[in-house]
Amino acid sequence: MPSDHTFLRACRREPVEATPVWIMRQAGRYLPEYRRIREHYDFMTMCKTPSLAAEITFLPVEILGVDAAILFSDILVIPEAMGMGLEFHEGRGPVFPDPIRTENQIQALTVPDPSEKLGYVLDAIRETKERLGGKVPLISFSGSPWTLAAYMIEGQGSPDFRQAKTLMYDRPDLMHLLLGKLAESVAAYLNAQIEAGADAVQIFDTWGGVLSPDDFQTFSLSYIEKIISGLRRNGTPVIFYCRGTGVLLDEVARCGADVIGIDWTVDIGRAREIAGGRVAIQGNLDPAALYAAPEKIREAVKGVLGKFGSGPGHIFNLGAGVAPDVPVENVRALVQAVKEESRVYHDGNHIRR
Amino acid sequence: MPSDHTFLRACRREPVEATPVWIMRQAGRYLPEYRRIREHYDFMTMCKTPSLAAEITFLPVEILGVDAAILFSDILVIPEAMGMGLEFHEGRGPVFPDPIRTENQIQALTVPDPSEKLGYVLDAIRETKERLGGKVPLISFSGSPWTLAAYMIEGQGSPDFRQAKTLMYDRPDLMHLLLGKLAESVAAYLNAQIEAGADAVQIFDTWGGVLSPDDFQTFSLSYIEKIISGLRRNGTPVIFYCRGTGVLLDEVARCGADVIGIDWTVDIGRAREIAGGRVAIQGNLDPAALYAAPEKIREAVKGVLGKFGSGPGHIFNLGAGVAPDVPVENVRALVQAVKEESRVYHDGNHIRR
Repeated sequence: MPSDHTFLRACRREPVEATPVWIMRQAGRYLPEYRRIREHYDFMTMCKTPSLAAEITFLPVEILGVDAAILFSDILVIPEAMGMGLEFHEGRGPVFPDPIRTENQIQALTVPDPSEKLGYVLDAIRETKERLGGKVPLISFSGSPWTLAAYMIEGQGSPDFRQAKTLMYDRPDLMHLLLGKLAESVAAYLNAQIEAGADAVQIFDTWGGVLSPDDFQTFSLSYIEKIISGLRRNGTPVIFYCRGTGVLLDEVARCGADVIGIDWTVDIGRAREIAGGRVAIQGNLDPAALYAAPEKIREAVKGVLGKFGSGPGHIFNLGAGVAPDVPVENVRALVQAVKEESRVYHDGNHIRR
Repeated sequence: MPSDHTFLRACRREPVEATPVWIMRQAGRYLPEYRRIREHYDFMTMCKTPSLAAEITFLPVEILGVDAAILFSDILVIPEAMGMGLEFHEGRGPVFPDPIRTENQIQALTVPDPSEKLGYVLDAIRETKERLGGKVPLISFSGSPWTLAAYMIEGQGSPDFRQAKTLMYDRPDLMHLLLGKLAESVAAYLNAQIEAGADAVQIFDTWGGVLSPDDFQTFSLSYIEKIISGLRRNGTPVIFYCRGTGVLLDEVARCGADVIGIDWTVDIGRAREIAGGRVAIQGNLDPAALYAAPEKIREAVKGVLGKFGSGPGHIFNLGAGVAPDVPVENVRALVQAVKEESRVYHDGNHIRR
């Protein structure tokens, strides 16, 4: 991968010709090609078969022309590698049938050796890299310790994370024991991904925003900082995506990541003001804008680009994953609009260079 | 109602002896006494029978010793008064079986005369005031135009408000037509509540936080400002509760309300810094803290009180409604802790006076 690819340049806040764009969940159910593959395999088989994962990862690069690929996988492969059974139910999402509820269960969890327990992900990275052939960089990823812990304790997604928070409030010592094991697992996993050839890594803290600011610092962000400082990066950019924490952007931007992914409830111009001097910003169109007509999508894209303004350090994305029922042509309209409308914000930089 | 009740003083940012406390959904399902009444009547019958509404409203005043009562009612009574059928399904929440999806439906909606269509709420206010006998002030409330519109379009709660946002992005003119009718209805309704004797009114913008900052300003906050400026308040405090918009606190605090209700994802000390010179702050304990043991709840309460710090202008509350499965003794522990632990933050003010 040439290190001057537009996506990698943007991660380093270096000048580019147009704002790079990729889309969270871009290799997902809204693609008919994905659904056709999904008809023949269950979700975990797709994750665990490197040739399938590589094929799916490549789909949006071909179909949409995005500037980065993101490995087809799931954040919950780490808990599975730690020994938790994981089931995928259509329409209900991933489920741990035996969620973490006792001290003994936490004690019993082991930090997995990635090459042993998550070798299929590393193989998928290698196979995808070969398939991509340097066309675009490959992003690999992990869930954050807090987000993984919340899933492991609840057993599934939750509207209020009652069980996870009860443990956090009642037994912070046990929560820290669990988070410590997860942080160690995530760090080893991300290092293995980088070693296998990932061009960038992203940490998803999908549920950080359900915490109060102090609890977010204590039970999520402090572990992110620890993980990032323990990475053998060799120049590989680290992206930290955190949902619902726009109010804490100043703190978040100090976690050591090169890029901060923000959701759509933050003004990206304000985000740039607060954090743009230290990190690149990834985001942040409202995913629901993709239900609108293509010309409205273009207007919405122009809104985000205009708010970020001129100059480098912006990676265009949605503020959360693309929904399964969005028309592909709308997603393509988004990518096209970013490529066309963003050039005016970069010309000046190239002239200045 | 003597206007020097501690809750009303706090709304005006006047010195008090202890931080007043009430709890969103305090007259709700977590109370066995409520569930016993609920066994005999459906939800709307309870709302529409003033003697029942008054009885339920009074329950937490007796059981918890809160510093304000909030009328037992529902934000969706306005759409119902506008002609939309409303059904309550146990476990699923309120449902509009015929949601707003066409221009004709929006055109057909009429602005209800509160004394005619919502007289039962005004009667309930009068009956509750009599029952309270000046013991604590009575808060009455309405949903915000955006939150009501979102419900009316979706037909129920939604994880992404796809339908509401599609209308907003594709046909902003129609969305504004709907919001305009709702704003007119809400203003007339709140004025009628104040006339009937409500000691304070609260506007709930439960779903404002799902919007981008620009859309929040255009489709929610601008209507709040219009409503508040049109109220005949006669000194009645107006509380604006808005979830998920901590990042916009500066804008929110300029809407004309006397009190801003915040959720638990904002640092209340920071909120006071940003907005405390203009408005009182209501909040903001994580509702999930009520699942913890009473001594942990006391610690969490102390955390919120300490962050707000010394002096007036704080009304203690949760950052969202109390959950139905929380033990009553935990809610009582919360109220007790606020009353006991908050006094040290107010002594100085009393001495200074």
